[in-house]
Amino acid sequence: MLATTISNIQPVDKKYLQIAQARLDSQAKPRGSLGTLEYLACRLVAIAQGKPPVIDPARIYTCAGDHGVAAQQVSLFPQEVTRQMVHNFLNQGAAINILAQTSHIDLKVVDTGCLGDPFPAHEHLLHLKIASGTKDFSHGPAMTKEQCKKALTNGVLLAQNAVKEGMRVLGTGEMGIANTTPATALFCAYLGLDPMEITGPGTGLAAANVNHKAHVIQKALDFHAQIVADQDPVDILATLGGFEIATLAGVILGSASLSIPVVIDGFISTSAYVAAKAICPQVQDYAFFAHVSAEPGFKKILAALGEKPLLDLGLRLGEGTGAALAIFLLRSAVNIYNDMATFTEAGVHDAK
Amino acid sequence: MLATTISNIQPVDKKYLQIAQARLDSQAKPRGSLGTLEYLACRLVAIAQGKPPVIDPARIYTCAGDHGVAAQQVSLFPQEVTRQMVHNFLNQGAAINILAQTSHIDLKVVDTGCLGDPFPAHEHLLHLKIASGTKDFSHGPAMTKEQCKKALTNGVLLAQNAVKEGMRVLGTGEMGIANTTPATALFCAYLGLDPMEITGPGTGLAAANVNHKAHVIQKALDFHAQIVADQDPVDILATLGGFEIATLAGVILGSASLSIPVVIDGFISTSAYVAAKAICPQVQDYAFFAHVSAEPGFKKILAALGEKPLLDLGLRLGEGTGAALAIFLLRSAVNIYNDMATFTEAGVHDAK
Repeated sequence: MLATTISNIQPVDKKYLQIAQARLDSQAKPRGSLGTLEYLACRLVAIAQGKPPVIDPARIYTCAGDHGVAAQQVSLFPQEVTRQMVHNFLNQGAAINILAQTSHIDLKVVDTGCLGDPFPAHEHLLHLKIASGTKDFSHGPAMTKEQCKKALTNGVLLAQNAVKEGMRVLGTGEMGIANTTPATALFCAYLGLDPMEITGPGTGLAAANVNHKAHVIQKALDFHAQIVADQDPVDILATLGGFEIATLAGVILGSASLSIPVVIDGFISTSAYVAAKAICPQVQDYAFFAHVSAEPGFKKILAALGEKPLLDLGLRLGEGTGAALAIFLLRSAVNIYNDMATFTEAGVHDAK
Repeated sequence: MLATTISNIQPVDKKYLQIAQARLDSQAKPRGSLGTLEYLACRLVAIAQGKPPVIDPARIYTCAGDHGVAAQQVSLFPQEVTRQMVHNFLNQGAAINILAQTSHIDLKVVDTGCLGDPFPAHEHLLHLKIASGTKDFSHGPAMTKEQCKKALTNGVLLAQNAVKEGMRVLGTGEMGIANTTPATALFCAYLGLDPMEITGPGTGLAAANVNHKAHVIQKALDFHAQIVADQDPVDILATLGGFEIATLAGVILGSASLSIPVVIDGFISTSAYVAAKAICPQVQDYAFFAHVSAEPGFKKILAALGEKPLLDLGLRLGEGTGAALAIFLLRSAVNIYNDMATFTEAGVHDAK
């Protein structure tokens, strides 16, 4: 099923970018004067294969999972916070609840592998738990390859179900205490970056603890040097990733295979994107980067990817908060493209 | 009436910034992890004097006016486009119509001084026309001082009426062929900037024409050197400004006097802000800068003001388009502040 999904992902046809720009240039405004909104509109038209783009209804999947590497003292918050935050999401109290509501986005929470007992049933919670947290990747793989493939497949199913339920854009979100550590390890393994350069404070570590965290990651990369050198993308994800990260990589692959745009939130979600892109480079045409995470290594990661996100608001919360804000910009771009009058329709003179 | 308005403008009490930050720090997220949204929430709480901030309903005033200096060949578009665009606004076909709808913002169009006959009555159009366009400021003042004061007073009345009608935030927008020329002249006169450094293409002038435009502005500044040197802010605005710019300066002064936030759109709106700030520096506490205009001189202007806008999307359209997008961010910040659960309410452990 994963192989079929990957084989279904096609690059967008670039001719639609020009067709869309021609329509934007016919609309009553100076050429190019809506900047990034025009860029978004063109990409969304290309994804829609020339049809009028639609991004509503929109959904964010906030995927939660726990991490064995939390045992290495890499986070400021205790591990039970992952579970507590899932309850907060379900009780509508978290930042992502507020921002999804503000931006008219459906929110689904996914247990991909939180510690402890399965959660009780809840209308907004999806139960795709693979295990009670990953193993500590500092001295062994975080997941088995089978677990990782299962998480990827779960993500593809989430995208497929969303489309069946009428969704036209997906956003990624996550919650998992310590998950900047696997995300950083993945950036290093996939992009050849140095943990001493890109490891940051996550939820707020002091400088000495950031240094410790970087050393934990460096040691793990040394321990798994052969896996990193072999560059099998699923092996790397299984070894260094997390259940929520692998599930989100599946959401990204699934979105691309179904030709719907997917909005990548921040630091952790970008590590899922990097994994998905290593598995299938064509996902790039369907991905929109929401915001520049305040995590200090993020600018180097963006440079390695050649991507420029839509927003730069100093956010470093995750959950999908940046994606929720960015989806509003996609909606703005779509509405401009579909609804703005042309020079002719408006009876406005074009430039001299 | 203008003097009363100015005397009513009070700086916000900075103690509310700390009070607001303390609430944000009690909410279940890492400290400061919502970045600019937290900054916005703190400022909005301070403006609301510690009460829960509210920004809805929101309104944008898109003020239109014509400019005598258009005779100097400083714009790519013919002057009748100002009037044509007013019709486009009233017919809901322009970018600002689409973006205001997308962001649930009320839009009012204001004729502050378009060329030609008065517009017919329309439910969304306010008739505050002072004259059929300003005079060409390259060889005389654009407005009389009385006209300029009338425009400022009109803007104050617009803010007062908005508040009477229940509005809780205002955004600025404008339309006026050639109006980057008076805006640039105002930046030079108020901020001591050099027209050769900050003059840009506006709606899309070629490089040679940008150079011509810069020389037109430099000559006008030389012609009016005594007015510039005297630094009477209303005299400068009357001499180099425009009806829509002066009216928007009044909207900004009026908003501040009524203690409601005002969102400054782009290049032209910022020139109205600079005029308002020269008249009353305390307006700064009520102003939110929407976006970094793509007009190349704008970064120098922002540096002179010490301001960092919320968005950087390469917009250079005006109309209030950037303000419409930014008001969505203010709404997001307000909703976070008012609705997000605290650590205690959510049953989430705080940092170790």
